[in-house]
Amino acid sequence: MSKSIPFQHVDRVPLDHVNIHDDFWSYYIDLVRSVVVPYQWDALNDRIEAAEPSGAIRNFKIAAGLEEGEFYGMVFQDSDVAKWLEAVSYLLESQPDPELESTADEVIEIIAKAQQEDGYLNTYYTLKEPGRRWSNLAECHELYCAGHMIEAGVAYYRATGKRKLLDVVSRFADHIDSVFGTEPGKLRGYDGHQEIKLALVKLYHATGNERYLRLAQYFVEQRGQKPNFYEIQLKERGGESHWTGINHAIDLQYSQSHAPVREQEKAIGHAVREVYMLTGMADVAAETKDESLLAACRRLWDNIVSRQMYITGAIGSMPQGEAFSFDYDLPNDTVYAETCASIGLIFFAHRMLRIAPQAEYADVLERALYNTVVAGMSRDGKHFFYVNPLEVDPKACRGANHKFDHIKPVRQEWFGCACCPPNVARLLASLGEYIYMVQGGTIYAHLYIGGEAKLNVGGSEVQVKQTSNYPWDGRIRFEINPQEPGKFALALRIPGWCRHARLSVNNEPYPVDGQVIQDGYVHISRNWQQGDFVELVLDMPVERMRSHPLVRGNAGKVALQRGPLVYCLEQADNGANLHEIVLPANAKLEAKFENGLLGGAVAITAQGLRQDAAKWPGGLYSSEAVPALQEAKVTFIPYYAWANRGEGEMSVWVRETF
Amino acid sequence: MSKSIPFQHVDRVPLDHVNIHDDFWSYYIDLVRSVVVPYQWDALNDRIEAAEPSGAIRNFKIAAGLEEGEFYGMVFQDSDVAKWLEAVSYLLESQPDPELESTADEVIEIIAKAQQEDGYLNTYYTLKEPGRRWSNLAECHELYCAGHMIEAGVAYYRATGKRKLLDVVSRFADHIDSVFGTEPGKLRGYDGHQEIKLALVKLYHATGNERYLRLAQYFVEQRGQKPNFYEIQLKERGGESHWTGINHAIDLQYSQSHAPVREQEKAIGHAVREVYMLTGMADVAAETKDESLLAACRRLWDNIVSRQMYITGAIGSMPQGEAFSFDYDLPNDTVYAETCASIGLIFFAHRMLRIAPQAEYADVLERALYNTVVAGMSRDGKHFFYVNPLEVDPKACRGANHKFDHIKPVRQEWFGCACCPPNVARLLASLGEYIYMVQGGTIYAHLYIGGEAKLNVGGSEVQVKQTSNYPWDGRIRFEINPQEPGKFALALRIPGWCRHARLSVNNEPYPVDGQVIQDGYVHISRNWQQGDFVELVLDMPVERMRSHPLVRGNAGKVALQRGPLVYCLEQADNGANLHEIVLPANAKLEAKFENGLLGGAVAITAQGLRQDAAKWPGGLYSSEAVPALQEAKVTFIPYYAWANRGEGEMSVWVRETF
Repeated sequence: MSKSIPFQHVDRVPLDHVNIHDDFWSYYIDLVRSVVVPYQWDALNDRIEAAEPSGAIRNFKIAAGLEEGEFYGMVFQDSDVAKWLEAVSYLLESQPDPELESTADEVIEIIAKAQQEDGYLNTYYTLKEPGRRWSNLAECHELYCAGHMIEAGVAYYRATGKRKLLDVVSRFADHIDSVFGTEPGKLRGYDGHQEIKLALVKLYHATGNERYLRLAQYFVEQRGQKPNFYEIQLKERGGESHWTGINHAIDLQYSQSHAPVREQEKAIGHAVREVYMLTGMADVAAETKDESLLAACRRLWDNIVSRQMYITGAIGSMPQGEAFSFDYDLPNDTVYAETCASIGLIFFAHRMLRIAPQAEYADVLERALYNTVVAGMSRDGKHFFYVNPLEVDPKACRGANHKFDHIKPVRQEWFGCACCPPNVARLLASLGEYIYMVQGGTIYAHLYIGGEAKLNVGGSEVQVKQTSNYPWDGRIRFEINPQEPGKFALALRIPGWCRHARLSVNNEPYPVDGQVIQDGYVHISRNWQQGDFVELVLDMPVERMRSHPLVRGNAGKVALQRGPLVYCLEQADNGANLHEIVLPANAKLEAKFENGLLGGAVAITAQGLRQDAAKWPGGLYSSEAVPALQEAKVTFIPYYAWANRGEGEMSVWVRETF
Repeated sequence: MSKSIPFQHVDRVPLDHVNIHDDFWSYYIDLVRSVVVPYQWDALNDRIEAAEPSGAIRNFKIAAGLEEGEFYGMVFQDSDVAKWLEAVSYLLESQPDPELESTADEVIEIIAKAQQEDGYLNTYYTLKEPGRRWSNLAECHELYCAGHMIEAGVAYYRATGKRKLLDVVSRFADHIDSVFGTEPGKLRGYDGHQEIKLALVKLYHATGNERYLRLAQYFVEQRGQKPNFYEIQLKERGGESHWTGINHAIDLQYSQSHAPVREQEKAIGHAVREVYMLTGMADVAAETKDESLLAACRRLWDNIVSRQMYITGAIGSMPQGEAFSFDYDLPNDTVYAETCASIGLIFFAHRMLRIAPQAEYADVLERALYNTVVAGMSRDGKHFFYVNPLEVDPKACRGANHKFDHIKPVRQEWFGCACCPPNVARLLASLGEYIYMVQGGTIYAHLYIGGEAKLNVGGSEVQVKQTSNYPWDGRIRFEINPQEPGKFALALRIPGWCRHARLSVNNEPYPVDGQVIQDGYVHISRNWQQGDFVELVLDMPVERMRSHPLVRGNAGKVALQRGPLVYCLEQADNGANLHEIVLPANAKLEAKFENGLLGGAVAITAQGLRQDAAKWPGGLYSSEAVPALQEAKVTFIPYYAWANRGEGEMSVWVRETF
């Protein structure tokens, strides 16, 4: 079959049309509602004693003239409030909650009062450097905070129909539009921390005002043009930097402003900025049907997923600059792999999927979601990883070897720079957006997450009910209930990890082959009736994954994956010194669901081999024959669940016998 | 036989009594004389255009009132002049050179004029912060510079009999003695960068003045006592640091001042400081026959060589602080492994050897000398490694992944902080000191370096002539010519790397077994006659070396060693992507001397295996069966010779099949 044609129209599926009932995900979404969002609210209001103060709500109150005081926190502190409001919006859109809505309304009142006469909105500049707006775009996050507030405004409007915050952010966007552009007298600047482009496209969708799309387009196109705007501003500031020890206006690659976006060949610099940029580029490409901009997105997508992505869907190989490094450089222990970067990769994948439904995008989305994003949060919803290593030796952390200073062997309570927890919250609260997509007469199922959805297919409502025990089991059942019987297609993703799938429609086998598979989706085109049901069986054996030979650190090593889940060894099951473990190429791998394990999970056991340090002939180096490896049972658990049983070693990759 | 008894007397062998004629070493020593020392002289005088200016000689001229200007360079810039003078002294002691001596005399005149009325000598403080002497001992290197100048003064006196610099440094030492101590009114401070203790013991030997020994002992004992002197000074300075970004008075482990030296269990902090400290401790222990201080030296020696030393004799596992990290943490690629640290380890090993002749010390000395120290200098004598990695991928350097920012894939011309090149120069110029030692009635041969030596055995002169093709060949011939026939012992080291040795005396086989081997030396006790000769044959097959199982980064890997030389793979011989190479456990290893290779060297070749990236099924990760490894010839060269054929990958450790 031919490749999918890009740029077809896709409606957003409203969250109140998707009801998630899923053994795996409902737990996390409930956690967001019952723990993360309330906890974050307390954090934003400085009510958590053990955590660093936030000051974020108070900054808005001071800027609104409701309190006296000084700005507190990072230059991007406002964005924490915006992300919280966005997460709240998704929760409200999914399920009414008058108390939560009333709290949000109060916050919005304060934000509205903090907005300046001309529409400008940023508590740092308003309170701390009132005369210096837009003077340090490279470093000072004004457009980043604006973007997050716009996303919140759009989300709250969609959830509640209330326009107050949407009007605030529209006025702000109008103000930004009056400041930036190529017209005489305007600043030819652009966002230092990327974010506003994708937000402006959302604002365009919510308001229908094309000016916001043009402004997003301007920010896409202006980035990296010569003479470089950041260098001009740096000179105007006399070389001054907002930060100590780094100067983001000097390292242009850090913010992907070293070249125009269409000329960028490789993902480089700060990983979150890169994927937020690409999300915005894809949004603009989709709206303007810009083939060459889409080609730039695809080129950078390919670079990331085929050369710079960890098997866990994590990105950002080095802590310095929280950044991409270079092709095939994927160290497991000194990695950065920020939770937010994988969330950004999910945003980007989701946009690419909407432009052209190809399973490759959903495969990466699933990989990042089920591994790095879930790993980012503890089972109690109160502890978070910012950095997600694939190999940890706690002995090496906390200054023992300073190259691991950024690695935390256990999840932390909250962060001074609190970007990841609210990002996890807003992603999980909006998970319903990622499961289905309707394009033309086709319902695409991208993710296998149980629940009910009401979808609009060519003006007619179709109810889809999905049931499964995914990701533990590959059997997924769909019930299709169209309001009226009708012809349309159901396209189910055959994940890249699955070698063999079976399908039946109303208990009749349905062939899964090249004839009906298009870009990784099996298409079931038929006249659907109330009560029709589809059963998909994805074979889910344990797979031995190996890395491209140019990935230096994984040479001779194997990782286990079952379904979408990447596995790891943990000290809790295998004792210390995990590097002593070897997995024979022919070892039988047994997968078994264990109720008591970390909320219920499939563990994998195998007869491995292990070097025994006690049998070493002595000395630090020896030419004596090394004692034979000993047989040893080894246990792997899903990566996302690591570090929930105290502090210990962890490793995804394990040596393999030849 | 019983263990050697410590604390026996050992005379220094003057350098004019040891004439090195050795195919391997003569080249390097000639290079020091003809290239390194003249080049360094030009560097000290700012006559090398391509290099960063030094200012070191000019600083002394300004302080001497001979020129106008301001201090230039690091706070320890004076030490470069001292190290140069020390190297010159060794060259002069080995072989007269009136022109070089006259240049040195001129420099000494300037230094003498730069000395202050009260004996103080330091151009940084004299010129730049005259009122703040001794106000920042943790960071500002006054005692370090003093130590190096004392070493120079002693060496120049020994070489020439001229007392001028010896008198200068004696007056300076007297001044230091008047400032520091536990007596009321004195500062209870000690050296931030360790060095002065070992220098003071040399000054004690040269002058016979016990006060210098007592001062060295004071510095040993006072270190790390509570309340901590650096913390007191830090408070007095209001928290001020001499450096940006680091504060050495806060990180007490950095300078090994976190605890009294006798209580330190593990080598920690800046590696050069640690081994210079231990050298001074061993010197003081030897002179005072202090068993418990010697026990502390042994404990830290054991920790270094059995848990924190690279197979190349390098130390310092991390760039942050150029420091030790923790037991068994020996990463090959992010290592620091400063050339100076291995030189310091040689100093320490040499002192331990003099206290108790045990081959273990000479083995480590040899390992550091033949691998890291020689690697530190290029074959042209003009390029130097400061950092000596055991695995390099040039693609990863120069900011591609910032954890490698300290790694240079090729030797550099000179350094702003120029500690390593002059340290190599002074070590190689004094190499004659390390070969033999006479203790009681025994001549110990520690190193197998060809040449003639005149040794004083119990008041009678014995000429020893050594001939070999070491390190390429294990056959070593000694001719023993006593002035008078007499009974004494010749003790030849059986290196730790040698599994089988044979010996003959005047062509008669001499058993090499437990009966005559004591602490790793085979003792030949007899009545020696003019013309007696000894032939020692050390079997020198290629050995497969493996690391202790707790060395995480070397799990499943092997390194080749032949004789004292550690080998490595280089891109020049094996192409890029060295990590693709696997050495089967049963691969035949062929060693062959190649005249044309890097000044003549034994290369090792083997039939290895290699993963072929071109045969990879595709994607960054794959569960497809990995294509079989291909046979591939692999070539190893001695580690010391790497990076002499342009820029490329290098690796000491290679994966091994099970």
